Amino acid sequence: MNTSVSTDPPPAPAGIAQPLARYSAWRRCGDWLLLSGVIAVDPAANRIVRGYDDIPPEAQALLGRSHEFSTDWREGPILAQSWYVLDRIRATVESAGARMDQVVRLVQYFRDLDHFPHYSRVRRHFFPGTPPASTVVEVSAMLPSPDILIEVEATVWLGMPDA
Amino acid sequence: MNTSVSTDPPPAPAGIAQPLARYSAWRRCGDWLLLSGVIAVDPAANRIVRGYDDIPPEAQALLGRSHEFSTDWREGPILAQSWYVLDRIRATVESAGARMDQVVRLVQYFRDLDHFPHYSRVRRHFFPGTPPASTVVEVSAMLPSPDILIEVEATVWLGMPDA
Amino acid sequence: MNTSVSTDPPPAPAGIAQPLARYSAWRRCGDWLLLSGVIAVDPAANRIVRGYDDIPPEAQALLGRSHEFSTDWREGPILAQSWYVLDRIRATVESAGARMDQVVRLVQYFRDLDHFPHYSRVRRHFFPGTPPASTVVEVSAMLPSPDILIEVEATVWLGMPDA
Amino acid sequence: MNTSVSTDPPPAPAGIAQPLARYSAWRRCGDWLLLSGVIAVDPAANRIVRGYDDIPPEAQALLGRSHEFSTDWREGPILAQSWYVLDRIRATVESAGARMDQVVRLVQYFRDLDHFPHYSRVRRHFFPGTPPASTVVEVSAMLPSPDILIEVEATVWLGMPDA
Amino acid sequence: MNTSVSTDPPPAPAGIAQPLARYSAWRRCGDWLLLSGVIAVDPAANRIVRGYDDIPPEAQALLGRSHEFSTDWREGPILAQSWYVLDRIRATVESAGARMDQVVRLVQYFRDLDHFPHYSRVRRHFFPGTPPASTVVEVSAMLPSPDILIEVEATVWLGMPDA
Amino acid sequence: MNTSVSTDPPPAPAGIAQPLARYSAWRRCGDWLLLSGVIAVDPAANRIVRGYDDIPPEAQALLGRSHEFSTDWREGPILAQSWYVLDRIRATVESAGARMDQVVRLVQYFRDLDHFPHYSRVRRHFFPGTPPASTVVEVSAMLPSPDILIEVEATVWLGMPDA
Amino acid sequence: MNTSVSTDPPPAPAGIAQPLARYSAWRRCGDWLLLSGVIAVDPAANRIVRGYDDIPPEAQALLGRSHEFSTDWREGPILAQSWYVLDRIRATVESAGARMDQVVRLVQYFRDLDHFPHYSRVRRHFFPGTPPASTVVEVSAMLPSPDILIEVEATVWLGMPDA
Amino acid sequence: MNTSVSTDPPPAPAGIAQPLARYSAWRRCGDWLLLSGVIAVDPAANRIVRGYDDIPPEAQALLGRSHEFSTDWREGPILAQSWYVLDRIRATVESAGARMDQVVRLVQYFRDLDHFPHYSRVRRHFFPGTPPASTVVEVSAMLPSPDILIEVEATVWLGMPDA
Amino acid sequence: MNTSVSTDPPPAPAGIAQPLARYSAWRRCGDWLLLSGVIAVDPAANRIVRGYDDIPPEAQALLGRSHEFSTDWREGPILAQSWYVLDRIRATVESAGARMDQVVRLVQYFRDLDHFPHYSRVRRHFFPGTPPASTVVEVSAMLPSPDILIEVEATVWLGMPDA
Amino acid sequence: MNTSVSTDPPPAPAGIAQPLARYSAWRRCGDWLLLSGVIAVDPAANRIVRGYDDIPPEAQALLGRSHEFSTDWREGPILAQSWYVLDRIRATVESAGARMDQVVRLVQYFRDLDHFPHYSRVRRHFFPGTPPASTVVEVSAMLPSPDILIEVEATVWLGMPDA
Amino acid sequence: MNTSVSTDPPPAPAGIAQPLARYSAWRRCGDWLLLSGVIAVDPAANRIVRGYDDIPPEAQALLGRSHEFSTDWREGPILAQSWYVLDRIRATVESAGARMDQVVRLVQYFRDLDHFPHYSRVRRHFFPGTPPASTVVEVSAMLPSPDILIEVEATVWLGMPDA
Amino acid sequence: MNTSVSTDPPPAPAGIAQPLARYSAWRRCGDWLLLSGVIAVDPAANRIVRGYDDIPPEAQALLGRSHEFSTDWREGPILAQSWYVLDRIRATVESAGARMDQVVRLVQYFRDLDHFPHYSRVRRHFFPGTPPASTVVEVSAMLPSPDILIEVEATVWLGMPDA
Repeated sequence: MNTSVSTDPPPAPAGIAQPLARYSAWRRCGDWLLLSGVIAVDPAANRIVRGYDDIPPEAQALLGRSHEFSTDWREGPILAQSWYVLDRIRATVESAGARMDQVVRLVQYFRDLDHFPHYSRVRRHFFPGTPPASTVVEVSAMLPSPDILIEVEATVWLGMPDA
Repeated sequence: MNTSVSTDPPPAPAGIAQPLARYSAWRRCGDWLLLSGVIAVDPAANRIVRGYDDIPPEAQALLGRSHEFSTDWREGPILAQSWYVLDRIRATVESAGARMDQVVRLVQYFRDLDHFPHYSRVRRHFFPGTPPASTVVEVSAMLPSPDILIEVEATVWLGMPDA
Repeated sequence: MNTSVSTDPPPAPAGIAQPLARYSAWRRCGDWLLLSGVIAVDPAANRIVRGYDDIPPEAQALLGRSHEFSTDWREGPILAQSWYVLDRIRATVESAGARMDQVVRLVQYFRDLDHFPHYSRVRRHFFPGTPPASTVVEVSAMLPSPDILIEVEATVWLGMPDA
Repeated sequence: MNTSVSTDPPPAPAGIAQPLARYSAWRRCGDWLLLSGVIAVDPAANRIVRGYDDIPPEAQALLGRSHEFSTDWREGPILAQSWYVLDRIRATVESAGARMDQVVRLVQYFRDLDHFPHYSRVRRHFFPGTPPASTVVEVSAMLPSPDILIEVEATVWLGMPDA
Repeated sequence: MNTSVSTDPPPAPAGIAQPLARYSAWRRCGDWLLLSGVIAVDPAANRIVRGYDDIPPEAQALLGRSHEFSTDWREGPILAQSWYVLDRIRATVESAGARMDQVVRLVQYFRDLDHFPHYSRVRRHFFPGTPPASTVVEVSAMLPSPDILIEVEATVWLGMPDA
Repeated sequence: MNTSVSTDPPPAPAGIAQPLARYSAWRRCGDWLLLSGVIAVDPAANRIVRGYDDIPPEAQALLGRSHEFSTDWREGPILAQSWYVLDRIRATVESAGARMDQVVRLVQYFRDLDHFPHYSRVRRHFFPGTPPASTVVEVSAMLPSPDILIEVEATVWLGMPDA
Repeated sequence: MNTSVSTDPPPAPAGIAQPLARYSAWRRCGDWLLLSGVIAVDPAANRIVRGYDDIPPEAQALLGRSHEFSTDWREGPILAQSWYVLDRIRATVESAGARMDQVVRLVQYFRDLDHFPHYSRVRRHFFPGTPPASTVVEVSAMLPSPDILIEVEATVWLGMPDA
Repeated sequence: MNTSVSTDPPPAPAGIAQPLARYSAWRRCGDWLLLSGVIAVDPAANRIVRGYDDIPPEAQALLGRSHEFSTDWREGPILAQSWYVLDRIRATVESAGARMDQVVRLVQYFRDLDHFPHYSRVRRHFFPGTPPASTVVEVSAMLPSPDILIEVEATVWLGMPDA
Repeated sequence: MNTSVSTDPPPAPAGIAQPLARYSAWRRCGDWLLLSGVIAVDPAANRIVRGYDDIPPEAQALLGRSHEFSTDWREGPILAQSWYVLDRIRATVESAGARMDQVVRLVQYFRDLDHFPHYSRVRRHFFPGTPPASTVVEVSAMLPSPDILIEVEATVWLGMPDA
Repeated sequence: MNTSVSTDPPPAPAGIAQPLARYSAWRRCGDWLLLSGVIAVDPAANRIVRGYDDIPPEAQALLGRSHEFSTDWREGPILAQSWYVLDRIRATVESAGARMDQVVRLVQYFRDLDHFPHYSRVRRHFFPGTPPASTVVEVSAMLPSPDILIEVEATVWLGMPDA
Repeated sequence: MNTSVSTDPPPAPAGIAQPLARYSAWRRCGDWLLLSGVIAVDPAANRIVRGYDDIPPEAQALLGRSHEFSTDWREGPILAQSWYVLDRIRATVESAGARMDQVVRLVQYFRDLDHFPHYSRVRRHFFPGTPPASTVVEVSAMLPSPDILIEVEATVWLGMPDA
Repeated sequence: MNTSVSTDPPPAPAGIAQPLARYSAWRRCGDWLLLSGVIAVDPAANRIVRGYDDIPPEAQALLGRSHEFSTDWREGPILAQSWYVLDRIRATVESAGARMDQVVRLVQYFRDLDHFPHYSRVRRHFFPGTPPASTVVEVSAMLPSPDILIEVEATVWLGMPDA
C-alpha cells in the first residue's frame, strides 16, 4: 500500500517528508526490484482516484469513456483506478531503469471480482509483450478506505535480456 | 490465477491459443521460477473441478473417497481441488526441469478455512521431503466463480542442491 | 502461517516434534530468506496471544499499556499481536545471521483495517532504518481461529551491504 | 414476462400449446403494439440464456467475446441476455410489420444496475436511429429464476412516419 | 396504488371524500382507459385484505380454500389478494362500459415471486379469452405496508372489436 | 432514467451533445407524449440533487425548509428530489405545448416508501386539478447511484379538452 | 419507561394497583422533579399507541392527519406517539403544580432517527417558550415491544421564576 | 461505566491506582450523589461477572439458581449481572451514608430487552420501599466487551427525609 | 444534540437565528448547569467535523496526527470529533463562568466502542483534575447523520468549591 | 403439528370436521400411544395462543403472571404456550385412559432456546413423578406462523405399571 | 437420511454395495418397522430430484404440472420431492409386507414451511385412509445439499388390524 | 438433551442430585429403551467437550489427531464431540444390559452439516455390525450453548436376537 510519496530509499529525494513514510515504495535487491502494493492515491494531493475526472484526458480516451452519466458513474471508478495503478507501476519501473516486460509477477487484490474484466482490458495496454505471472484474489478491504477497488504488488527482475 | 493453458512464455507450445492468455503461467528468472496462482480449472476443457468425478480414479483413491453420497458431496470439492491444484504445480515444476523440494514458498488462498485440514493432508503427499515456507489466508472470492475453493501461488528456487 | 515451532529445515533443532510441521518456518535460497506467514501463536504453548497479559512486561510498557480495563480490553489484542509477530520475525531473521534492515518486503494481512494505525506504530520500533516494501490487505480470516488479527509474511535479502 | 412461445393472439400458430400460455406476447391496439416483458428464455427449448454459449457465434462476436475464461464467465451472462432480449423484441416488432425506430418506450428492469453499461452498449446496436424513451430500475427478482438478469417491456407506435 | 375510493374524475360520485384522494383511480383518454396500480385494500373500510376471511365465501370456494389451518394461513394471503385485486380491476373496467378482454396490458408487481403460481391460477378465471400482454417483477415493497403482496396496473383499449 | 439533457428528438436543440444520449427524453406519438423516467440529476451540471441547497430558494420555501440542521439533513433529500423531478416533468410537458392536467399516468419508483408522504405533499402542488392515475412501488435501486431516491415516468395525453 | 399508572409516590392514588409498579412515574426532590422515561402506552388500557386512531381527534387535527390511507399508515405511528408522550409529560408536570417551561432537560430515545423531523414539529407545540436542553440518540429497542418508536425522559426544575 | 476501583474522589483510598482511573465512580454535589454507570466487573480482579459462579452463594440462592445446567447457562449471566450491579450501587450508596430509598432515578441500559423480566425481579429485592424513577433502553453495546449485558446509572438525593 | 448555535436562553445573543433552534444549548437551574448533548457540528458553518482537517492545527498536534495518509484516515474522525465535542463543552462551561472540574457527570454515546480508547486519551487533556462521573454506551445512531461518532451530555454543578 | 381438532381416529367425535384434518392427533398401537407434535393453537377457535390473555386465569396464576406490562409482554408468550401445549398433551393422554407418568419420551422444538428455562419450569408442574426422556433442539420455524414458539411431540407407553 | 440403496439389513440384496451404507434404510423390531429419514435422491443414479423432469409422467400429471415454464420452475421442486419421498416410503413399506395405513407416525422436516401446502396436498394421495400422527418443523438444512427441501421419517406398526 | 447425570429412573443411583434433573436419561418400556438426546457435556464436571483435550488419549488416537495446531483447532471439536456422544450412548446401552447392534434408530441433529463426514467416520467405529436406521438434519441451535455441535437421540430394541 503506497499512499505517500516514497522514493528510492537510500538517496532521499525532495518532496513529501520521508519520516512520515514508514515503508519503502520499492527496494532494490541485486537484479530484483520489489515494489510495495500500489493503490490509486495521488501522492501529491493525498487524494483517492474515484473516477474519470481524476485521471488525464488521454487516459480517459484510452479507456473509452462514454460520457453517458450513468455508464461513467458505474464503470469509471474501476477503470480509472486500474489505469492509475498500472501507470504508477510503469513510472516506478522506468525510473529504476527497467522495462515493463521485466515485471515478472503481479499479485492483484480486488474488492469485487466483477471488476476483473475491466482491469484485464486495461492491463493489456501496459503489457503488450510477455505478460507477468499473475495471481488474482478478492479481499474484503484495502487501505485507506472502501473507495479503494484494487491494489497491485509487482516484482521486477532486471536480469531478463529480452521479452 | 491460471485458467487457460499458458506455457513457457518464450517458446510458444501448441495447444490453446496464447493471444487469449493475458498473463504467463510462469516466468523463469535465472535460478528462480515464479508461478501464477493456480486454480482447479481444467485448461483443455475450460471446466472447473467440482468434485471427485472431475479427477482420475487413482487420485480419488489416494484421497480416500468414501463412495457415501453425502460424505462425498461435502468433502469432494475441496479434496479434488486440492489435489488438482498441487498436481498442476507439480507438472509445471517438472516440465521446467525442477523438483518439488525446490518449491520454496507457497501462498495459499482459501474461501473457507474449515477446508484447511483437508488441503493439509493432500499437501503432504506432494511434499514428502523438506516442505516449502507457507502462508495461508481466507479471502472472499477467487476467479472465475464462487466454485473455486483454493488458489495456490508457488515460488521455486532451482539453486538448491538437495532437500 | 506458522503455528508450530519450525526451525531451520536442514539442521533439525531440539524441541517440538518436526514431523508434525508440514511446512517450513523459512527457506534459505542463496542470498534470500523466505519466511512463512507469521501469526501470534506461542509455539511452546500452542497458545494464541490474545492481549497484553500474553506478552512480556517490557513489551507492554513499550506499547503504552494504559492499565485502564476497557481501553486495554479494546486495544490490547492488536497491539500485543503486532508486537509478537514482528518480534518473532526479528528472532528468526537474527537467528539466520541477518539484520532487520535486510527485510525487503512485508505482506501484511489484517482481519480489520481499523487495526492498521496500531500496527503501524509498533512496526516503527522494529524498522528504525530503511523500512521494507509493504503490502496491506484485509482478509476474511486467518488460521487457526478468529482470534488471529494479523499475519505477516517477510522476505529477506542478505545481499544488501547496508541500510 | 414472456417465457413460453406466445404468438400473435388472433391467428394461433403451430408449436407450443397456447392453452398453457396465460398471457399474450403482444397485443395490437390500432396503431399501437404493446409487448409483454421479455426475458432471455429460449421459447423452443424452455432454456434460460446463461452466457455466450447460448447465443449464435455472430452475436458473440458482435459483443466482443474475449475467450478469456474468467472475463467471459463474469461478463457473458449480462451481455448474452441483453442481446437475446433485444433481438427477440426486434423479431417480434418485425413480424408485426413494424420497425425498431417505432419502438417508442422501453421499461427496463435489472437485477443489478452494475450491468447497465453492458446493456447500454448492446442497445446501441439495436437503435441506431431515434432511440425510445427509457426507464431503468433495479428490482429484487424476475421470473422464472435468479438467473434472469434483465427484463424489457416495449411499446411500439406504428403511426410514426419516420425516425 | 389505489387505497382510497377514487371514482371517475370529472363526475364526482358520492362516498369517500375526493379531496383526500390525490390521484385518480383511472383516466379515460379517447379509446383508452389507464388504471392506477390496484392493491388489496378495501376502500370502504380502509382495511387490508389479509386472507380468506376478508373476501366473500364464493371467492373462497373458487380459490379452493382447504379449511386446514396451516395451509390456509400460508396460502390464503396471496390467493385472497390476487382475487381481490383482479376483481376490483374487473369492476372498474365494467363500470366504464368495457370488457375484460379489452384489458391489453398488465404490469404485475410481487413482493415474492414464489407467489406467482398462485396468482397465475387466479388470473385464468378473469381472462378466459385472449389474455393481456403481461410484465411481472418482484419489488421490495408496496404501499401502504409490508402486508401488501401484489399490485397490478392495467391498461384497457376500448377499440378492440372482439377478443 | 434521464440523466443527460435529451431534447425533442426530431428537432435537435443546442446544448449538451446528443450523440451521448442513447435514449430520448420523450417521444411524441400522435396525441400522446411518452416521457422517459425522470430522476433528480441536473442535466447542465451532471450533478445529483442531494438536498435543499441544490434547488432554488423559492422551492425550498415552498417545501417548508426548517433551517434546523438535523431536520433538513433528514428530510431535505427526498423533498428536494421530489420537487426537482416533478418540476422537470412540468417543464418538459409545457415545452411540448401541453398542460399538467394532461398528464394521465405516473409510475413512481421509490427507494424507501417511508418517503411517500413527503413526495405526496409535493405532488399536490403540481396537480391542483384532476390528478393522474398513479402506480407506486419500492425498488432496490435506480441509476446512476444510491443517492437517487425517486424516479417518475409520465404519460401525457393531449386529446383531453379540459380537466 | 412508564407503562403502568404510577402516581405521586407518597400519596397513593386510586386506580391501577401500585404494588405491581416497581418503579415510580416520578420522584420529587426539593425543587426538582425527576420523571421516568415515558412511552406511548395508555396506562388505563395497557394498550400501545400505534397510530392516529389511538389519540383524540383534536390531536389528530393538530398533527395534520391527511386522511390519505398510505400517508397516515406511514406517518401516523411516530406522530401519534410523539404527541402522546409529550402530552403525558405535560399532564404529569401540571399535576405536580409545575409548568412546561420548567422542563429543563429532555433525553429522547428513538428507534429510527428518520422520525426526528416529525417529533421535532410536535415538540414545538409543547414548548412555545424557552425549550429544554435536549439529547437525542437512536437505540436498538425500548420496552415493551418493537412498536415503541420513542421514549422521553424529562427533568423539571421548579426553582425557575419565569421562562 | 465503572470498571476500575474508583473511590470517593477527594479522599483517595488505598487499593488500585487512581491515576489510571480517568473518571470518578461518583461525585457528591450538595444533597446529591451522582454515580457513574455501573457494570458487572469485579474491581479487585478486573474480571467480568459471567454467571452464577462469579457471585456469592447467598446471592445465587436469592436468585433461585436451578442447578440445572442448561437453565443456569441461559439465565445465569443476566441474573448474576443484575444482582452484582445493584449490589455495587447499594454498597456505594451506603458508603456515602445514604439509603437505597434515596436513589431517585435509574437509567438502565440493556443489550437485550428480553432480559428485562429477570432484572426486574432482582431489582425488587433492592428497592422494597419507594422505587426510583426509571428509564430503560436497549443499546447495541457497552464497555468493555459483549459479555456485558446491563449498565445502570443511579442518581441519589440525600434531602429526602423518608421513603 | 446541539447542531445550531444556542446561547444562554434568557439573554438572546447575536449570531445564528434562535427561532430555528428548538432546544436550548444549556439551562441554568440554580447551582446547576444542564447541557444538551453535544456533537461535532460546527455551528457557524453547519458542517460536520469529519477529520483532522476540520480542527485547528494546535489540536491536531495535541492529538498526535501522524501525517501518514492511511493512519490519519482511520483515526482522524474519532480523534477530531472527541476533541471538538469536549472543547465545545469547555467553551460553554467557561462562558457560564464555571470550571471544567465542576463538570460532575458525563453521559457519552458512541457509535462504535472500539473508538473508546481514542476518546479516553483525549478526555484526559480536558479533565486534569477530579474527573466527572461517567456513563458510556454504544447506540445505533445519532443526529444528524451516520458521520457522527460520539455525543456527550454534560452536567455541571457550580456549588463545588474546589476539585 | 396439530392445528385442527383431531380426535381418536376410529371413533369420530363431534366438533370440527374431520375430513379437513389430514393427519391424526394420535395413533394407538398396542401398548403405545404416538401423538402428533402439539402447538399452541386453540382448536375450537383456530386461534394461536399469544400470551397470558389466551389461557385461563388459574393457569396465569400458576405461571406467576406479574401484571407488569413489559414483563408480561416479554415472558407471557412462551409461558402461555408452554402451559397450553403441555395441558393439551395431558388432556389427550387422559382421554386415552393413560397417565402423565406414562409419557416416556418428549421431543421438544423451540424457536429460541433462551425460552428453555421458562418451559422447563412449566414442565415440572406436569411431571411431578418420573419425567420422560427428553430431546430439545432449536429449529428455524414451525407451523402455522412465526408466532409459534414451541412444539412438543410425545410418546406414551401404557405398559408401565407405576412411575 | 437415506441417500444410498439400503435394503432389509439381515438379508443383503443385490444392487449397490452395502459396505458403503453406514446406516440401515429400515430396521424391523417385532411388530414395528422403523425407517430412516427419506430424501429425494434417486438411489440408482445418486441424483437429486430437482423438479418435474426427474419423476415419471404419471406422477407429473397427478401433481397437476402446468407446463407453464415459470409456474413449474417455482412449484416443481417441492411437488416432485414430496411425491418422490412418499413414494419411496410406500415402496419400502410394501416391500416389507405392510400397508400405508400402518404408517402411524411421520416426522417431517422442511427447509421452508411455505412449501407445506404443496406437500400436504401430495400426502393426501398416499394416505386416503386413517392418516399417521404427524410432526412438522422447518430446519436449516438437510443432507446432502441445499437442494433438498424435505425429509420424512416414518414409523410403521404392523400390529394394526385395519385402518 | 442430557446435561446432568441422570440414571435409571426407578433405582436412584448415587452421584449428582436427581431432584435437579427434570427429565430421565432413558426410560425402559418392555423390550424398548428410549434415550434422551445426548450432547457432549461431561456430567461429572458440567463441562462442555470442546476439543481433543477433553477426551481420553486413546480416543484422540482413534480419531487420528494430527497434532498440527490449526488442523486440530478446526477438526477437533466435532470429532471429539462425535466420539463423546456415541461413547456415552454405548455406556448407557451397556449399563442397561443391551448391545450396540440393538440400537435401531438414531436421530442426529447437527449445527453444521459440513461436520457430517467427520461424524460419519466416528460412527463406523461404534456400529461395526448392522447399523441403526438414521435421520440427519441441521438445526439452528442446541442446549446449552452454541458450542454444542451435535445431539443424538437413540432408540434401542432389546428383542433383537442377533445383529
